Amino acid sequence: MKIVIIGGVAAGAKAAAKSKRMLPDSEVDIYTKDTNVSYSTCGLPYYIEGVFEDWHKLVVRPKTEFEKSGINVHLEHKVTKINPELKAIIVTNLKTGDVEEVKYDKLVIATGAEPVIKGFESVIKKKNFYTLRTLEDGVSIRDRMRTVKNITLIGGGYINIELMEAFVKNGKNVTLIEKSPFIMPNLDEDISVLVQSYIIENSNNQVKILTEDSIVEFIGEDEITGVITQKGIGYETEMVVLSVGVRPVVDIAKDAGIELGITGAIKVNSRMETNIKDIYACGDCAEKVHIISNTPVWIPLGSTANKEGRTAAMNLCGEHKDFEGVLGSSVTRYLGLNISKCGLTEKEARKLGYDTVSTVVTKKDKAGYMPEVENITLKLIADMRSHRILGAQAIGCGDADKKIDSISVGLANNMEVKDLLDVDLTYAPPFSASVDILHSAARIIQSKLKN
Amino acid sequence: MKIVIIGGVAAGAKAAAKSKRMLPDSEVDIYTKDTNVSYSTCGLPYYIEGVFEDWHKLVVRPKTEFEKSGINVHLEHKVTKINPELKAIIVTNLKTGDVEEVKYDKLVIATGAEPVIKGFESVIKKKNFYTLRTLEDGVSIRDRMRTVKNITLIGGGYINIELMEAFVKNGKNVTLIEKSPFIMPNLDEDISVLVQSYIIENSNNQVKILTEDSIVEFIGEDEITGVITQKGIGYETEMVVLSVGVRPVVDIAKDAGIELGITGAIKVNSRMETNIKDIYACGDCAEKVHIISNTPVWIPLGSTANKEGRTAAMNLCGEHKDFEGVLGSSVTRYLGLNISKCGLTEKEARKLGYDTVSTVVTKKDKAGYMPEVENITLKLIADMRSHRILGAQAIGCGDADKKIDSISVGLANNMEVKDLLDVDLTYAPPFSASVDILHSAARIIQSKLKN
Repeated sequence: MKIVIIGGVAAGAKAAAKSKRMLPDSEVDIYTKDTNVSYSTCGLPYYIEGVFEDWHKLVVRPKTEFEKSGINVHLEHKVTKINPELKAIIVTNLKTGDVEEVKYDKLVIATGAEPVIKGFESVIKKKNFYTLRTLEDGVSIRDRMRTVKNITLIGGGYINIELMEAFVKNGKNVTLIEKSPFIMPNLDEDISVLVQSYIIENSNNQVKILTEDSIVEFIGEDEITGVITQKGIGYETEMVVLSVGVRPVVDIAKDAGIELGITGAIKVNSRMETNIKDIYACGDCAEKVHIISNTPVWIPLGSTANKEGRTAAMNLCGEHKDFEGVLGSSVTRYLGLNISKCGLTEKEARKLGYDTVSTVVTKKDKAGYMPEVENITLKLIADMRSHRILGAQAIGCGDADKKIDSISVGLANNMEVKDLLDVDLTYAPPFSASVDILHSAARIIQSKLKN
Repeated sequence: MKIVIIGGVAAGAKAAAKSKRMLPDSEVDIYTKDTNVSYSTCGLPYYIEGVFEDWHKLVVRPKTEFEKSGINVHLEHKVTKINPELKAIIVTNLKTGDVEEVKYDKLVIATGAEPVIKGFESVIKKKNFYTLRTLEDGVSIRDRMRTVKNITLIGGGYINIELMEAFVKNGKNVTLIEKSPFIMPNLDEDISVLVQSYIIENSNNQVKILTEDSIVEFIGEDEITGVITQKGIGYETEMVVLSVGVRPVVDIAKDAGIELGITGAIKVNSRMETNIKDIYACGDCAEKVHIISNTPVWIPLGSTANKEGRTAAMNLCGEHKDFEGVLGSSVTRYLGLNISKCGLTEKEARKLGYDTVSTVVTKKDKAGYMPEVENITLKLIADMRSHRILGAQAIGCGDADKKIDSISVGLANNMEVKDLLDVDLTYAPPFSASVDILHSAARIIQSKLKN
């Protein structure tokens, strides 16, 4: 049995390792255009910040370890074509230019995602214009950051919030430009304004956030030296990082006749099978199902990639394994503020036709007399008709992530508001409040459901 | 409508406040033999430690605030009799000795629990022998602790682990004596030995733990100056705290013909109604239902008391409200080690007849390259027949409580092992690992279920 895997970051690396473990006699090959396999993209902002000095720490499992377990890793090998009829791929060795055809019995597409650069094609080649995806991107951004003072971030999503933290901690001045009226578009607006206020109030005057604005002109030749925005704001800058989203890498899959979903990512079933026999897709290049709405979504995350890679491997090795879908659970932080969410936002839920009811509660996360006490603000969203909990968002210097993980498990088990009202959570003064914020929020929602 | 509440710590205080809020025209009276109402018993070890200096911080809502909202609080008033036929109670004013009869329309019994002193009746009056239950107990223990060096703790449960932390942080030497072979009897033995090792290794030689031993002789007249154990160990000590468990205070209820359950606590239904009309019981004096086993249990905890007080109030005020039961969720810590559990232990589950399957996994709680990373050891227990998760225990310097709260919500929603396998938990390097310990443990259990 010959198993070929395209891509080796999270899903691909996991699929390879799991396949080889399940079928030790199989031949497993990873082909990737990248210079590394199996590394934590999510850790790049912390490497850039200087939390640790050696980027090798981001490598979960180096090439040598894969090879020790009998997996062949072909770095800097770009797959240019999939031929399902011949059960073969065409690979170009990026170092030598050699092209070869490689046969497979089972193929796993784990080509991941890449930064959206639409509208920025003309500046992408400038020396101090960056996107963040690979280890090399991280090293370049960190090296440059250390030599400059004024940095521009385009886009107000997770990656740039994390980069902003890294830059501010390094004493830099940051201007963040966001097209829409609010940063953090995966939160509801009532929560994202709180995040924005926190950022402005806690960044020692190092941060400017320009919403409903965009850059219309980049000044400078080889290097960008300044920008002018649509609202007419012009300023000098020494470095620009673009993070306005990512898109699934699906070109070779599409060319081979592999069906894409409504989100533009590769359509797969719960076993990670594409429409073509013996071809699987997993990780950031694959479409997912949202467990709450039961609709196709594309939420590319490392934690999901890992599970999907494992699912693909189990199925292609002959075991039946379903991956049920995602909840959109995520977390990040900005200088002490933890920002976390799961399920649908109220905005998303309404767009899907739910009759939502919600509440926003702020409460201490531990007993008030304990020195470690902090606040959390929780937004809880439920469906007026089914009473099912649809999602939650929590921010605060307190244990916001702890609350969201609890709700995530509830969402995965179809929790209704009544199931959260009296749920027996652990209580002790250094850990929690005797009436937890989850109870408080559920009680408010419950009373709204009754009216 | 006249609502009378016996007891005012957690359940009683909550029942009073909620009743008055729901029925503002009712007359609400709290009778308690205590000198305070509405305080956090769970916070006493932290007051003793010196985390804060003023015990008033433990008072959630002082008498004056209850009175401002129209609730009459009768401190140092001991209820000696309930007469259901007359719908009246007999109360003794402990300051004046006056006895009066008080009529009620609805009665709430929230008499709480008291320390078990069986076997120690002869030493209970000694000046330096303590139990910890009331604010006064806390003040006395703290005052004494500050003047001594060598302390004896009898019993290895939660309260004494928390007191041990307080004493060790204050530079004291502590000898803990536990009758059974393991401390922390509400954990499985494989986990409690890990806790015990941690305590010994991290207490700077200030702690001795004597298991399978007990005190056979107390030396000293007014004050205890030394003890001799059954195994023949004799040593000097300046202070002894007994915490070998608590028992529900049910005497007046029993005398009035109120039915007790198999656990010895007052039997109530999901609306907190006793067998006698218009008499409710809630909090530590009331029996509970374990949601996993659906059997009566007595797990007295402040967080449960609060929910039950609220439930009693809602029902006696005419609203239908059920309290479904408890999961035995709890948490504590000892010098950086977080100790948490929910559901049944394997020992309990086997005694109840479950065919259990379990695993113990140790794993980092965050990305390995983050400075805040710590270990967690998780024991996950499932039922071989139904595949339902029965319980979990987590210890470690990492976020053990976070993991247990997630499982608690799952338990309350009848989670099976397969529901935990791929559950979408929040992931980011400062918060979690991309493959969470919950996933790892569920995968191991899943493979055991298949065999």
